[in-house]
Amino acid sequence: MMDRADKDLAFMLQYENVAWYERGEVRILDRRVYPRRVEFVTCRTHGEVAQALRDMVTQSTGPFTAAAMGMALAAYECRGKTASEQMTYLKQAADTISHARPTTVGRMQRITGGCLAYAEKALAEGIGDLAEGIRDYTVATNNRRYNKVGKMAEYLVDLFPDNGTVMTQCFAETIVGMMLRECRRRGKSIRLFCPETRPFFQGARLTATVCRDMGFDVTVITDNMPAYVMQREKVDVFTCAADAICCDGYVANKVGTLQIAIAAKYMGIPAFITGIPDSGHPTHDSVHIELRNPAETLEAMGVKTAADGVKGYYPAFDLTPPSLISGIVTDLGIYSPYDLKRYLAVSDLGPYEMVI
Amino acid sequence: MMDRADKDLAFMLQYENVAWYERGEVRILDRRVYPRRVEFVTCRTHGEVAQALRDMVTQSTGPFTAAAMGMALAAYECRGKTASEQMTYLKQAADTISHARPTTVGRMQRITGGCLAYAEKALAEGIGDLAEGIRDYTVATNNRRYNKVGKMAEYLVDLFPDNGTVMTQCFAETIVGMMLRECRRRGKSIRLFCPETRPFFQGARLTATVCRDMGFDVTVITDNMPAYVMQREKVDVFTCAADAICCDGYVANKVGTLQIAIAAKYMGIPAFITGIPDSGHPTHDSVHIELRNPAETLEAMGVKTAADGVKGYYPAFDLTPPSLISGIVTDLGIYSPYDLKRYLAVSDLGPYEMVI
Repeated sequence: MMDRADKDLAFMLQYENVAWYERGEVRILDRRVYPRRVEFVTCRTHGEVAQALRDMVTQSTGPFTAAAMGMALAAYECRGKTASEQMTYLKQAADTISHARPTTVGRMQRITGGCLAYAEKALAEGIGDLAEGIRDYTVATNNRRYNKVGKMAEYLVDLFPDNGTVMTQCFAETIVGMMLRECRRRGKSIRLFCPETRPFFQGARLTATVCRDMGFDVTVITDNMPAYVMQREKVDVFTCAADAICCDGYVANKVGTLQIAIAAKYMGIPAFITGIPDSGHPTHDSVHIELRNPAETLEAMGVKTAADGVKGYYPAFDLTPPSLISGIVTDLGIYSPYDLKRYLAVSDLGPYEMVI
Repeated sequence: MMDRADKDLAFMLQYENVAWYERGEVRILDRRVYPRRVEFVTCRTHGEVAQALRDMVTQSTGPFTAAAMGMALAAYECRGKTASEQMTYLKQAADTISHARPTTVGRMQRITGGCLAYAEKALAEGIGDLAEGIRDYTVATNNRRYNKVGKMAEYLVDLFPDNGTVMTQCFAETIVGMMLRECRRRGKSIRLFCPETRPFFQGARLTATVCRDMGFDVTVITDNMPAYVMQREKVDVFTCAADAICCDGYVANKVGTLQIAIAAKYMGIPAFITGIPDSGHPTHDSVHIELRNPAETLEAMGVKTAADGVKGYYPAFDLTPPSLISGIVTDLGIYSPYDLKRYLAVSDLGPYEMVI
C-alpha cells in the first residue's frame, strides 16, 4: 500500500509523464486504455503527435502538454538548419499540431504560440539544444499552471459542505487532483459520483482512478443516472472543467455536461465550472463542436454494440448556457458567468498561458 | 434482402420466440448478446426461469412472456400429481417467478395469476396437457395484448409530424414495432434517435435493430447525448414505454428516462409515455426501485471499465413525475398523467391482462 504522501507523488508524476520529449521522441501515456493497461504511444515526428491528438490518445490537459512536447520534437526534426529555416519549420509544425482537433484550435495556438515565442528568443540568444529548451519551457509553464489551478481548487473546495457529495463530469485532470488534495489538507471529507463518460469512459477510467488513488470514496455511474443520483443520493454540488469558457458565459465541455447542468438546475443543485474565460471566444458563436467518427459511438471498450445498418453520431462536446451555471471558479475567485469580462480585466495571465 | 412484408413477419416471429415452452423446456432468447449472437437460454425448471429473469436474459415484455412460459414449465414439473397438489405446486411456482425482480412483482403476479386461474379452470374441466394449455393461453393473451398495443400505436403516431424526428429510450419491444408499422401504413416518414441505454445497451442492441429491420433511419447515441441531440437535431417528440405507470401519474421506467424528460421539458419537446395505468400502484410510493449488482455498471460489453477499488451503483429504474409528462398514450387515447383514474373507469382490461 502506498501511503498518502506517496499517492500525492504518484499523482503528480502521472501528470508530468502524460507526455514527455526525450532524444527525438515524444512518449504519450495512452489514456484510451489506462488504467487497464499502462502503455505509451511513441511519436517520432510532430505529425505523429498531431495524429495521436486526433486519435484521442490523451485527453483533458494532456493534449496541451503533448502539443508543446510535439513542438520540442519539431525543433529536433529541424536541428542543424539556419535559425530562419528552423522558425519556418516550427511555424508549420505549430499549424499542424494546433489544427489536430477543431474545438481546441484557439487554445492550441496559444500553447504552440508560446513555444514559438520561446524558440525565437532562444535562437536569437543562442541555445545548446532547442528541443530540450522547449521541453523545459513547457515544464515551467505547466508549473505556473499548477500553481493557478491550486488557487482555483481552494475556491472550489470552499463550496463543498463537510461530508458533502460531489458529482463530476468527464476527466478534469489537474483540478480533480488539486481539489482532492485541498480537501485532504483541510480534513474535509467528500464522496464523489463520476458519470462514466461514453464513448471513451474517461469518467470511469481516469477521474475515478485519480479519486481512488487520492483515497476518496468514489462511485462510477452510467451516463443515464445523474438525475436519479441527484434525486436519491443528495448531491450537493456538480462541478466540471471546460474545454472553452466563452466570454458570454457559455461553456463548451464534454458532451453530457449540458444535460447534467439541466438536471442540476431542475433539482436545485448548483453547477460550478472551473477554469478561466477564454478571450479567444468573445461569444460562443466561435465554438466549433467537433463531430467525430460516428462508429466510435457504436462500440464500447472495443466491442461493437449495434447491428450493421444502424447509424452512429458523435458530437464530442456540448454548450451549456450561462443560465444553467452557478459560477465560474477561477484562480482569482468565483465569477458569475455573466460577468467574465471583469475577470479578464484583472487577470495577470500571459498571452500564451492557459489554466484548465 | 428481405422485403417489407418479410421484415414484418420476422419482427412478429422475433416476439413469438422471445420465450417458448415445449416438451419440458422453456427457451428464452438471450437479449444480453442479441443481435451480435442469436442464442437461447434453456430452462428445465421454473426456478431456472426465475433465475434467467434475475439475470436479465430478456427485457421489456420478454420477462412477462417468459414468466407465463415458466408457469407452463411448472405444470410440466408437477404432472401426474392430483389436481390439488398441482395447484399447490403452481402457486409456489407463481410466487417464485413473480418475485424474481422487485420492481415488477405486481405485474408478474397479474401474469402468473392469470395462469393460475386458467389452470384451476382447466384442471376442473379436465385437460390433456396442462403445460401446453398454459402455453396456448399465454399466446392468446399476448395476441389480445398486441391488439391493444396496435391501437396505442395509432394514437402515438398521430402525434408525430411528417418527416419528424423521434427520440426513444431503452427498449419498448411491441410498441416500437407497432408504431413503426403504423408509420409505414400511413406513409409517414420518421427518423429515430435511440440512446444506447447503459449498462446493457438495450437501445443500441434491441430498439435500433428493430428500427433497422423495419426499414427506418435510426441513429444510436450514447446516454450523455440526448440534450445535445434535442438542441441540434430538432427532435419533435420523446416517447418511451414504462415499467409501471402509477395512478398518480408518476412513471417508473429504465434509468435515464427522468433526465431525458427533464431535458425535453427544458427544450420544449413533448414527452409521451405509452402504456396503461397500473391499478396496482395507486401512488408511486409503492414502486420499489431495484438496485442491481453494482459491478454491472463497472463493465461494458463484458469488459471492465474502472479500476479496482472504485464503487459501482446500479438503480435499474427511475421515477418521472407527471409534471414532466405531456401525455400517457393508452389503447383508449391520450390521457393527462393527472387524469388516469378516468382511464381505469372506462378500460375493459381484464384482471390478469396488461398492456406494454
